[in-house]
Amino acid sequence: MVAIDRGVSTERIARDIETLSGPDYTLSSEAIRRYAYTPVYRNTLDFFTRALEELGFEVHEDPVGTLVARNVPPGEPAFGIGSHCDSNRNGGRYDGTMGVVTALEVCRLNAELGLGLPLQLVSWLEEEGSGFGQMLLGSRIMAQRVTEEELRESFRAIDDGRSFWEHAEAAGYEPARWRECIHVLDGLTGWIEMHIEQARVLQDTGNRIGIVRAIAGYVHADVVVRGRADHAGATPMDFRLDPGLVAAECILELERLARAAGGGTVGTVGEIEVRPSLINAIPESVRISLDVRGIDEDGFRGVARDIAAFAQEAAARRGMTAEYRERQNLPATPLDERVVAALTEAAGATGEPFMVMHSGAAHDTMCVAPFVPSAMVFVPCRDGISHSPLEDADPADAGLAAEIILNAIRALA
Amino acid sequence: MVAIDRGVSTERIARDIETLSGPDYTLSSEAIRRYAYTPVYRNTLDFFTRALEELGFEVHEDPVGTLVARNVPPGEPAFGIGSHCDSNRNGGRYDGTMGVVTALEVCRLNAELGLGLPLQLVSWLEEEGSGFGQMLLGSRIMAQRVTEEELRESFRAIDDGRSFWEHAEAAGYEPARWRECIHVLDGLTGWIEMHIEQARVLQDTGNRIGIVRAIAGYVHADVVVRGRADHAGATPMDFRLDPGLVAAECILELERLARAAGGGTVGTVGEIEVRPSLINAIPESVRISLDVRGIDEDGFRGVARDIAAFAQEAAARRGMTAEYRERQNLPATPLDERVVAALTEAAGATGEPFMVMHSGAAHDTMCVAPFVPSAMVFVPCRDGISHSPLEDADPADAGLAAEIILNAIRALA
Repeated sequence: MVAIDRGVSTERIARDIETLSGPDYTLSSEAIRRYAYTPVYRNTLDFFTRALEELGFEVHEDPVGTLVARNVPPGEPAFGIGSHCDSNRNGGRYDGTMGVVTALEVCRLNAELGLGLPLQLVSWLEEEGSGFGQMLLGSRIMAQRVTEEELRESFRAIDDGRSFWEHAEAAGYEPARWRECIHVLDGLTGWIEMHIEQARVLQDTGNRIGIVRAIAGYVHADVVVRGRADHAGATPMDFRLDPGLVAAECILELERLARAAGGGTVGTVGEIEVRPSLINAIPESVRISLDVRGIDEDGFRGVARDIAAFAQEAAARRGMTAEYRERQNLPATPLDERVVAALTEAAGATGEPFMVMHSGAAHDTMCVAPFVPSAMVFVPCRDGISHSPLEDADPADAGLAAEIILNAIRALA
Repeated sequence: MVAIDRGVSTERIARDIETLSGPDYTLSSEAIRRYAYTPVYRNTLDFFTRALEELGFEVHEDPVGTLVARNVPPGEPAFGIGSHCDSNRNGGRYDGTMGVVTALEVCRLNAELGLGLPLQLVSWLEEEGSGFGQMLLGSRIMAQRVTEEELRESFRAIDDGRSFWEHAEAAGYEPARWRECIHVLDGLTGWIEMHIEQARVLQDTGNRIGIVRAIAGYVHADVVVRGRADHAGATPMDFRLDPGLVAAECILELERLARAAGGGTVGTVGEIEVRPSLINAIPESVRISLDVRGIDEDGFRGVARDIAAFAQEAAARRGMTAEYRERQNLPATPLDERVVAALTEAAGATGEPFMVMHSGAAHDTMCVAPFVPSAMVFVPCRDGISHSPLEDADPADAGLAAEIILNAIRALA
């Protein structure tokens, strides 16, 4: 294992994050607001381009704007590292950006220490969906998980309603060549993305590093229970068809099912919509949203199936009906055992507390992992807060992550 | 008992309701929309004034616009009957109006049959609150349950924001004399209001008449449960503080408590407000509204107390907090046993199905009952629908009610 001067790495990471929090790099003075094809996003790509060119990397952007930098010629084997440097509209300094900054630090260490590792840094376009309302957009385009119709027509800018296609062309890109974005992966022997955890597991368990062995899949759905709107005062308890009671039973059952499924499966009701929503009216209908996730396909999909069946039975028991409507679902993404093992060994060698975990949130790595052996590294963020100007993380943990990633890549080389 | 020609009464009641559903009597072609100090409300008062003067009644309006008609000189003993003839903004033909029309029919029958009963018909101003957002406004003014500050300043028109005071003066009334409205009760020996039930108990039990022996009091309150907003995917079940689960427990506990209290006590959660309300975020807080009613003071107030305590315990069990905030409360109004008995006897004599019940909804009679021996008569409305253009009721039931009220007044005279 190579031991690095973590203090120096921490300082450089902190400095870069400080720089990228300046007024040239955000549309808002209240938050880090930075999305595709804005001048502040351009400035951010330029920042990384300059820094990487100084290290002898060749830098280019793919046909839609994903940044790719290599210290070996195109097509030759190299190990991929990176994340995304766009930010949520009401975002903080660390989500995505710290991953690219840390990847840059790995490139620096590789050069300084004369390790000669062939590396490719990638900063994926538009992970947050703040520009066009489409999450993981750059990596989905690369993985051919979009259609040309979507890029030309359906995906439209939140700000002005113009199409993604139009915006990409106006920014000087060639969206008509979007299918070529898959070549970002050419020659990649592996992929590691570092990211803040966006939850509180590392913080609350006292770990500085999480080695991510899988990214959760999910089912997003709604349950609509239909009852009967009656006068809250004048309708005796036995004469009611109150859908709120069925909704309440579903909320509690979802918790029970998720816990029973185990293996990290989670279930959440984040939205509850009551109609007509008057203090003195029994609701006519209640809609609850369902967010069910897990890394065990049978586990989380089973919870979604079971809550759908439960809702219908619970409604029927009370003389009502319940409808289950799926919005979308995504399979879980297992990550590569060899990459995870190399990261685990490198983390163990640091003597710092770490854990192997899964990611409940989605990441660009979901689009890379089907093609290239991949894993992720998480660092804690304070109180699990992300997508907020209150987002906070410790550059020292990122410095530690740089050492672990560097050593894992050496072991895998 | 006097037997009336119910067919004739039914026809006259149906005709009057039909007339008052015409374009001169509503601001909307989609609904019966009629509130204080509008030309259509004026037309409605004029309609009743003409009809009552034809029967030899002296008609006047009190200092704010409540219509009072007597067939005996002011101050002499008379039995009070009536309801209100304003209508909800999105109202139907029957709520309130059918009560005044039926009272008019009682006056007609009294004259035709030469019974010589001393009667006073009252149509209370602005029961629905559609003009100034204040329910039972005319009867509350009469009962001195308002303040001068409210009438001059706080109570403002929904349409133009001008004060009640200003509107009353512009309509030719003398709001400065509002304290004299209590004289509406001078000489009243009793009071009976007929109204549609606004619930489905009569329909579903196959009864044509309800004799109301009490009007429910209520507690309106909110419970706010505060948890912690975390990422729905990235936060394991054991790391959550999800206030939606506590809210769900409260919704089910409220049902249990209301059923356990018995005696017609009811509890309803009509509003649920989730923050931030995103499918992929565990809520930070959830507010539920509480509407608890009953005629047994200890019963319904006990349910409100118990649900407040339960919410705090249930939140604490899960490491959260819950706050109970009362919006308002009103005591239950017992009605007069003698008047109820007279109505019950008169109803029994008709051979038609009837029941003794309580009112879960509020009525002007709540403001009369503390001063004058009072009761109410309910007739069914289709599917319990009110405050809607879909409101429907059978004039034949109102004709039956007229006979019952007439005979009850005779028995009480």
